[in-house]
Amino acid sequence: MGGDNAPEMVIEGLVLALDRHPNARFLLYGDEARLKPFLDQHGRLRKVSEIRHADDIITNDAKPAQALRGGRQSSMRLAINAVKDGDAVGIISAGNTGALMAMAKFVLKALPGISRPAIATSFPTMRNKTVVLDLGANIECDADNLVQFAVMGEVFARNVLGLDQPSVGILNVGQEDLKGNSAVKVAAAILQDADLPIKFYGFVEGDDLAAGIVDVIVTDGFTGNISLKSIEGTAKMFAHYLRKSLMGSTRGKLGALIAKKALLEFKDSLDPRRYNGAMFLGLNGICVKSHGGTDGLGFSNAIHVAIELIEDGVNEGIKEDFAHVSEALQGGDAPEAEPAPDVQEKSGRAVGA
Amino acid sequence: MGGDNAPEMVIEGLVLALDRHPNARFLLYGDEARLKPFLDQHGRLRKVSEIRHADDIITNDAKPAQALRGGRQSSMRLAINAVKDGDAVGIISAGNTGALMAMAKFVLKALPGISRPAIATSFPTMRNKTVVLDLGANIECDADNLVQFAVMGEVFARNVLGLDQPSVGILNVGQEDLKGNSAVKVAAAILQDADLPIKFYGFVEGDDLAAGIVDVIVTDGFTGNISLKSIEGTAKMFAHYLRKSLMGSTRGKLGALIAKKALLEFKDSLDPRRYNGAMFLGLNGICVKSHGGTDGLGFSNAIHVAIELIEDGVNEGIKEDFAHVSEALQGGDAPEAEPAPDVQEKSGRAVGA
Repeated sequence: MGGDNAPEMVIEGLVLALDRHPNARFLLYGDEARLKPFLDQHGRLRKVSEIRHADDIITNDAKPAQALRGGRQSSMRLAINAVKDGDAVGIISAGNTGALMAMAKFVLKALPGISRPAIATSFPTMRNKTVVLDLGANIECDADNLVQFAVMGEVFARNVLGLDQPSVGILNVGQEDLKGNSAVKVAAAILQDADLPIKFYGFVEGDDLAAGIVDVIVTDGFTGNISLKSIEGTAKMFAHYLRKSLMGSTRGKLGALIAKKALLEFKDSLDPRRYNGAMFLGLNGICVKSHGGTDGLGFSNAIHVAIELIEDGVNEGIKEDFAHVSEALQGGDAPEAEPAPDVQEKSGRAVGA
Repeated sequence: MGGDNAPEMVIEGLVLALDRHPNARFLLYGDEARLKPFLDQHGRLRKVSEIRHADDIITNDAKPAQALRGGRQSSMRLAINAVKDGDAVGIISAGNTGALMAMAKFVLKALPGISRPAIATSFPTMRNKTVVLDLGANIECDADNLVQFAVMGEVFARNVLGLDQPSVGILNVGQEDLKGNSAVKVAAAILQDADLPIKFYGFVEGDDLAAGIVDVIVTDGFTGNISLKSIEGTAKMFAHYLRKSLMGSTRGKLGALIAKKALLEFKDSLDPRRYNGAMFLGLNGICVKSHGGTDGLGFSNAIHVAIELIEDGVNEGIKEDFAHVSEALQGGDAPEAEPAPDVQEKSGRAVGA
């Protein structure tokens, strides 16, 4: 039920996702009376989908604490419960990010060794894709949090992006050791000195995000959120000025017409819908957040992200690696990770949306 | 002597700046043997310029503390001294940013009421220009620092950009009051509640930077530096992919040829050299930092920024406004500003580079 054009946009996304993943099955949580007419238009999707009615909706202005307290019968909460109960292997939502993270943390719990799950995304750079985390789940982060993000991002880059030895950088205001706040300095020291199975590059700067200098970029949620939104805004501004320049003269218009295919290809290559789907890494269950303003194509990509995370066993990888990392950290001078909560892994069957 | 292509690039910048500001005069601090041959090639510039030999140079890898201790005979330090001594009305450097800020703070001191000077720049958005500060002088900022940045940015937008009632926003991860770290929350409360002569918009997000939602955007130096560099990197990536798409096919190349003028106009409108020149606001003297990798055109813009700051009396404006702000803050519940250091304003004559 979440997102600007839900639930229609969600159904359109499911149709596209089913083309790409013909074996997927879906549980749809929400207002049955609103969902059914859209679902009934798509015979093939209807066959692999089940609507599970929910009376309540978490609105976009609901605070995380409110959602936790009052949202027990909401579509979002019931979908998360489905992952916990093993009815679904993952949840995709285009709704309230803070509420989704709070409820997912409460219901699914963090993976062993992870004190704070993070929001991650992978996006296009001038080289390959780069994974960035955290994008806003954790406003203030200490060095341990950043080290955990590094481990999770590295596992994702290896398992999902298929990279052999992904490089990891920490976002900072300069490359020199002395630069930055104490969290990034201590985290860099841990990643440099501890005998971790991670290829640590060092500090990277804001312009290295788009340059694709490293495969994984680690940052606190405040900086990550603002940096990524700055990038999104710049892409929009760039497109705006390009259109304005081309449409401002007859020769510009003619040139654009002749180069139409190339310009469309360019537009596609940076289309934010193709990169939609932020992953909540570090949770004991797969949870993907779609941009609320996206359309069916964008939502289908968020579903694709969730299916990739499941198929590539990212959570199993994080658990395994974090066990090694904890050992390495305890062997060295670096501070110990927080004690891991005792959580049991569940394996599910369907993808809840 | 600072910057990748100094001193030639600096001389080229001075030539262009003199075209734009025929009454300007320049003091050039650096290695006379290297400066003179370049200067001698430009008769008109030579007439209004004086070389003041300096034996030492602050290198780019010098730490601020090293520069302060060991750089007393450096070109950078002598140029700053010239502003303090009233020989120059401002300094422009393409050298080491940290060393420049540290020495400028030490020699020129902060303006009354300002506890921490900030690095600011104005850059193009989808509407008008937006001023952003801090861009890296202060890695960790408290609410008072952010309020001071708001005052300084507002004065700049009014005096230099010529805006009647510039709007001010604080960069955050969301627009709601509850979002963000405590520094931004407290700063927003002060700007909202205290009876300040500032049009406070509230929180803005990363994508609002390029959208131009407000005239002044306030942030800590860590986030501001990374955000602005993210924007620079994205612009480069966008240009890279556009070129690649157009050059990848015959029709693309033909279209680009026909639309060449429009594409060049587009390129110019976002040319970073046109926005080169970061201002150190809050110092008792004008200090502008040029990008080290710029060329003569870029450096000439940094000189232009310094001359604008001087001609538009930005420092006088900041001092005046900060007196009002201090009164307003002391009248309300908001915390008092730090006691102002007792500094004397100097008025100079030439622009040191």
